[in-house]
Amino acid sequence: MAKNKGPRRPKAETPKGFRDYFGAEVTARKAMLDKIAAVYHRYGFDALETSGVETVEALGKFLPDVDRPNEGVFAWEEDGDWLALRYDLTAPLARVAAQYRNDLPTPYRRYAMGPVWRNEKPGPGRFRQFYQCDADTVGAASVAADAEICAMLADALEAVGIERGDYVIRVNNRKVLDGVLELMGIGDQPELCAAVLRTIDKADKVGLPGVAQLLQNGRKDESGAFIDGVGLTTAQAQRCLDYLSMTSLAKSAEEISSGEDFDRTGYNAYIIKEIRQAINCSSIGFEGVAELEQIADLLNAQGYGPDRIIIDPSVVRGLGYYTGPVFEAELTFEITDEKGRPRQFGSVAGGGRYDDLVKRFTGQAVPATGVSIGVDRLLAALAAKGRLEASAQGPVVVTVMDRERMSDYMGMVQDLRAEGIRAEAYLGNPKNFGNQLKYADKRQSPIAIIQGEDEAARGVVQVKDLILGAKIAAQATVEEWKSQPAQVEVAREDLVATVREMLGRHG
Amino acid sequence: MAKNKGPRRPKAETPKGFRDYFGAEVTARKAMLDKIAAVYHRYGFDALETSGVETVEALGKFLPDVDRPNEGVFAWEEDGDWLALRYDLTAPLARVAAQYRNDLPTPYRRYAMGPVWRNEKPGPGRFRQFYQCDADTVGAASVAADAEICAMLADALEAVGIERGDYVIRVNNRKVLDGVLELMGIGDQPELCAAVLRTIDKADKVGLPGVAQLLQNGRKDESGAFIDGVGLTTAQAQRCLDYLSMTSLAKSAEEISSGEDFDRTGYNAYIIKEIRQAINCSSIGFEGVAELEQIADLLNAQGYGPDRIIIDPSVVRGLGYYTGPVFEAELTFEITDEKGRPRQFGSVAGGGRYDDLVKRFTGQAVPATGVSIGVDRLLAALAAKGRLEASAQGPVVVTVMDRERMSDYMGMVQDLRAEGIRAEAYLGNPKNFGNQLKYADKRQSPIAIIQGEDEAARGVVQVKDLILGAKIAAQATVEEWKSQPAQVEVAREDLVATVREMLGRHG
Repeated sequence: MAKNKGPRRPKAETPKGFRDYFGAEVTARKAMLDKIAAVYHRYGFDALETSGVETVEALGKFLPDVDRPNEGVFAWEEDGDWLALRYDLTAPLARVAAQYRNDLPTPYRRYAMGPVWRNEKPGPGRFRQFYQCDADTVGAASVAADAEICAMLADALEAVGIERGDYVIRVNNRKVLDGVLELMGIGDQPELCAAVLRTIDKADKVGLPGVAQLLQNGRKDESGAFIDGVGLTTAQAQRCLDYLSMTSLAKSAEEISSGEDFDRTGYNAYIIKEIRQAINCSSIGFEGVAELEQIADLLNAQGYGPDRIIIDPSVVRGLGYYTGPVFEAELTFEITDEKGRPRQFGSVAGGGRYDDLVKRFTGQAVPATGVSIGVDRLLAALAAKGRLEASAQGPVVVTVMDRERMSDYMGMVQDLRAEGIRAEAYLGNPKNFGNQLKYADKRQSPIAIIQGEDEAARGVVQVKDLILGAKIAAQATVEEWKSQPAQVEVAREDLVATVREMLGRHG
Repeated sequence: MAKNKGPRRPKAETPKGFRDYFGAEVTARKAMLDKIAAVYHRYGFDALETSGVETVEALGKFLPDVDRPNEGVFAWEEDGDWLALRYDLTAPLARVAAQYRNDLPTPYRRYAMGPVWRNEKPGPGRFRQFYQCDADTVGAASVAADAEICAMLADALEAVGIERGDYVIRVNNRKVLDGVLELMGIGDQPELCAAVLRTIDKADKVGLPGVAQLLQNGRKDESGAFIDGVGLTTAQAQRCLDYLSMTSLAKSAEEISSGEDFDRTGYNAYIIKEIRQAINCSSIGFEGVAELEQIADLLNAQGYGPDRIIIDPSVVRGLGYYTGPVFEAELTFEITDEKGRPRQFGSVAGGGRYDDLVKRFTGQAVPATGVSIGVDRLLAALAAKGRLEASAQGPVVVTVMDRERMSDYMGMVQDLRAEGIRAEAYLGNPKNFGNQLKYADKRQSPIAIIQGEDEAARGVVQVKDLILGAKIAAQATVEEWKSQPAQVEVAREDLVATVREMLGRHG
């Protein structure tokens, strides 16, 4: 007879593209965000936490990477309205700025940290829920606000452990790019302009010759697939390339700047002069250059020179809604990629000025600027540099030799906790003592406490240094183990002092 | 000609039942959760953060309050599968415990803090996204684990500022209740049992006579609507009432215990004896009483006596999945309700043992116990007791008298920030100076800095004590203001020292 299988069991699985974070993964992120929040707070920004759910209407459609067709939001219908999970922290801010415009201070400066959700095809390292960490100033038209965001970003990076010299914040201005588009004669065709900007943004990947092909008829990518071009004329494309080749000039000037002959402090002034020349006679372009100059001057006066913040005409930023200064933080140290090749770590944060997002709701233009830190990227960078807070130490484990004396063991635990020492009694089935030591090992416990019948009768406990023990065990047999000094017998009343001293030994 | 209205604008609104949290609302909650996390960490619990989205299959249907028909989850379909926002932190834990059962330590002790979502009808103070803060031990059958959760809950409440004497943790055991149901002769009818438990749980609201009616034919509620009864016989209902009246006995004994004649330390032993008698000859009931006795003994040995943790036979807890000890933390101080009447604050946390949740996935029983703190309730309690961390002080505001000298103002701000002082320059339109002071007021700024052309020429700044100024202004006219000592002129290089001293004056 066939065995009765009973009802089908649910699968214990995270949905595709989602993941769980354990222990130190949670606390290391929290420690990093706490440090960033302290910087934002010092700069006068207030916390804001909006809900994960918004109306689709309020969110609007401002997702980055409009190239990919399958991206979108998680949404559902409710009584004829559509609700969705927020896909970033900027759209909810625009909603808040409009909803509470009569109550909030102007400018409204807020920071926000929390998960966002993207209904995208998941990939390696690409999840459908991830953290963002934003700071924005809403209601300030002055580029002093943009400059401040750049300075704050530099301070935040240093606060979490990215050393000066290991990062650079690159600043450009969409108005400069608009000037280039104007000079190309396509300034009045917004969709074409957007396509050109997206193409420029690929310069890092495909190089200038690749950009030249993509601006005109297209090119074959690495896989052999043909990517359609934007369809510009050769003259138009050339104009764009002239601008971009100044970028290479900028980059090489930057390299020179690390030599001693170059006037490093003058670098931003130098590149601004170059951009002004390239922009030629576009009025929007000139406006953009003037703003860049103001930003560079303000930052320079505060000591944020080109060793930390540089003007870079190649910065585009993917998002379509930027209207003025744009910036991104790049980590410049090398890491080894999955194929063992050295490469620069790359971008960990970006932002810019978006003067039209609040206008969607109110009809009135509200100038705004802000930055978003890619939390997982920055965590990965800290891990790569070995600057993550050490994973939380496991608890001291009080083992259970005699389950009738549970309250004695709990008493030891309590004495330890009362002194601020992380501790617990083994609460699994105590029958197999080996399992208790395996448990302590899995928890990365520094110390195990043992008290059997004999020890209890004599009023003593065994205190086992598991860290030292592991080192000894690597060279000794199990029989030798017991006599090693990694285990000491002390009076019950000396338990806490002994544990404290042993923990101190391992720092 | 009619004005062109353009496209319809989106509404700037949170979806119904959702809300935003501003400034101190965010940071006060964070400060409270940080303190709780520190306690959980010291007890050996590790952080876990699961994603907000789960498969509907993994979540299952374990929502509390099955009485209400409109409750549920936010769910949507994706490629034939249904995904949903988590409605608590326990269901995801059960999924994690099953999914990673070969990798996690046993027992697995974790805490989790984060938002959960309920697709319920919103009401006053009832939101569809709210925070939970849980700690659970999975894989420990011993009631020592339950006792530990109770002790940890007491420590957590004290850590956030609920003083001893202002809370009590009530402990019961579902097995005791099962014993009562057995004695009533309905132990083999699970749905009827669940209905009886839900009715018992209403004793606080409807009193014993109300429970008697609801157990039998039903009763009219306050609004005059008739609530159907469970349909027990008079004899069955009486049996239940006998048990519940012992609860009243317990409550009055508890009152006596605050007098001096009563042996307070013996209270739990006393009530356990009473329960054992009432349970009569039910074996499951006896098992439950024995567990309660062990819990009380363990806690007593660690100094958690009936001044903090008491055995209370009336505790039921709404959730259907509890299988052993159940507990809830109640705040015993009085607050004034919205109608001005004094009432006890009531429950802020609850939990218990649930041995079958992981079994759903694996087929193998996995003993587990845990507690969930109602974060918003506990925050409200701290606010009621005046023990919330004071709202974050606003920034020092450097006003802008001359927008050409922005970099001077930013320099002052930077000097202040470098010394750890929260500060910002006014970044709105500086034209109207009154708006700058209004802004400082709205930000609750302690100090404003002013430097006009004249001051700049003399190398000085005006430092305005806004806190003192507000006090003076309450009694003086605006004209008198300028000469008040609330504003001092100091040399630019003394700015930071002056601000520091002024801030120190206000603590």
